[in-house]
Amino acid sequence: MATIKDLAKMAGVSVTTVSRVLNNHSYVSEEKRKAVFEAVKASNYDKNINAVHLSKGKTQLIGVVLPFADHPYFALLLKGLAKQALENNYKLVFIQTDYRKEREIEALHMLKQKQIDALIICSRTCEAEVIEEHLPFGPIVLCENNKEIEASSTYVNHYNVFFDALEYLYQKGHKRIGYCIARKFGANSRDRERAYRDFLKKYHLPYDSGCIFDQCLHVEDGEKVVNHIMEMDEPPSALLVTSDQVAAGIVTCCQKRHISIPGDLAIIGFNNEPIAKMMNITTIEIPLVDMGENLFLQAVNDDLSNKEVSVQLIERGTV
Amino acid sequence: MATIKDLAKMAGVSVTTVSRVLNNHSYVSEEKRKAVFEAVKASNYDKNINAVHLSKGKTQLIGVVLPFADHPYFALLLKGLAKQALENNYKLVFIQTDYRKEREIEALHMLKQKQIDALIICSRTCEAEVIEEHLPFGPIVLCENNKEIEASSTYVNHYNVFFDALEYLYQKGHKRIGYCIARKFGANSRDRERAYRDFLKKYHLPYDSGCIFDQCLHVEDGEKVVNHIMEMDEPPSALLVTSDQVAAGIVTCCQKRHISIPGDLAIIGFNNEPIAKMMNITTIEIPLVDMGENLFLQAVNDDLSNKEVSVQLIERGTV
Repeated sequence: MATIKDLAKMAGVSVTTVSRVLNNHSYVSEEKRKAVFEAVKASNYDKNINAVHLSKGKTQLIGVVLPFADHPYFALLLKGLAKQALENNYKLVFIQTDYRKEREIEALHMLKQKQIDALIICSRTCEAEVIEEHLPFGPIVLCENNKEIEASSTYVNHYNVFFDALEYLYQKGHKRIGYCIARKFGANSRDRERAYRDFLKKYHLPYDSGCIFDQCLHVEDGEKVVNHIMEMDEPPSALLVTSDQVAAGIVTCCQKRHISIPGDLAIIGFNNEPIAKMMNITTIEIPLVDMGENLFLQAVNDDLSNKEVSVQLIERGTV
Repeated sequence: MATIKDLAKMAGVSVTTVSRVLNNHSYVSEEKRKAVFEAVKASNYDKNINAVHLSKGKTQLIGVVLPFADHPYFALLLKGLAKQALENNYKLVFIQTDYRKEREIEALHMLKQKQIDALIICSRTCEAEVIEEHLPFGPIVLCENNKEIEASSTYVNHYNVFFDALEYLYQKGHKRIGYCIARKFGANSRDRERAYRDFLKKYHLPYDSGCIFDQCLHVEDGEKVVNHIMEMDEPPSALLVTSDQVAAGIVTCCQKRHISIPGDLAIIGFNNEPIAKMMNITTIEIPLVDMGENLFLQAVNDDLSNKEVSVQLIERGTV
């Protein structure tokens, strides 16, 4: 492979001139520029891209923090991110955290070390202050409704969505409603809990922590929920299930146990994944691919912006 | 942020010495080395990591070529890859190809330009020659049984697995067996077609291209297959379905149309995804997470190795 010295020799110019041309500096005559380009072409020269990155201060890499990829929620976000990355000539660096703080910090460190040009956090584990400390090093984009952190974001207003869904179930006659979430202490889950408590207060309904099921993420978690409900003295008559995967698991398990849906138990899923359509599950459609695309565009745009996306209730057979 | 010049001033040494120390060169006295380290500590200096990569010729980034992430097959591979990347202090650069050749070539180009240390191709689109041309630039690891390309690989012997599954269905009394695949022209699909033809020849059964369904990848593709089968004069009595997602779609759709499984149609899925367990689908378990882990370890290991993984038939209720 030709070195920069070989190129200089071939073009009959200095190494500095070659370097200037390769890095698009000015102050090089058109004649010399042409000679260098011809040498590059003739020698099939390929720059060490890290030298280019060093000189430009850009890597064309965007970091993406995800807890895991083997879940349709994150896989669909990633699909949107990957689509825009391709169109804008970037690559994504995938940082799987399993919701461990130290891994998210590693991702923030990559931004600080300029190994990535921006960081997209699809689901956050670190405290707001830790994120804020890293804002000077490059754009950080969040997938949550956060007024504390001065960063761009694309998010669902989980408070409103949850409240509206609870109202919908209430209008359908449900007075004892439970819900399933992935983790109790995420930002989105806290918004949902607030909506749930406000809803109960509005209709003077009692709060029962036994109606809240966490660690519900995968299809097999649906079985856990059904087993639990079958042992309850006062089981909920309806469930908001924040993942269609889990909703599909609940529906399948109820069929086996001869629990009638929606007669004995009404279900509203989330996301409108293909499985919800297949199994005729009422769900709240979240435009995850679009959200992924917008998160990416925010990461490569210098202007701060906060975009709330709209969701849609898809009425099917489980309510 | 402190620059390398600031550090030199603080440590009372030259910029060259600082650079030598930061990049672990020899020929620096222990005294000067200590002074630089103290300056680094005092100033909270963070190197531009691209300068480190340039000097070391390593980026600690491994490229991963995937057609898409929103499918459990690839998501589970990615889970294994991400696990080992973390343990070995690497990050993954995610290159989604949608099976387009030019995107796979871009990934190969990243290897050539030293933007990544190695490349893992989970599902290949380029010709063998294109891959071979890029072998001099760094390790390329494949997820297929390929004797043509001199690269490490972790793979399932799809010929044997398919042949054995067809034999199993034949022993259960099935003489008219079809199969569903994602794409006709992948390396794995060609192995499966060979197995299918050899099986038919062994038992003197006729070949009917109408029993082969391609473009079957997602749960909703199951409906397509069932619709097609219902219109056939001589429908197959059993199907090998190379994705549990599609198998789940077929089972769900058959329930709606009152097609009895396994009575009217026997189904063997692939992967043993959680949904197969939930829906009691007979399937061939592929250790995808383990395969992902092994692919990663091969990418960071200089020795060539080819590992065939074993699969296991999980007998449930659909045969």
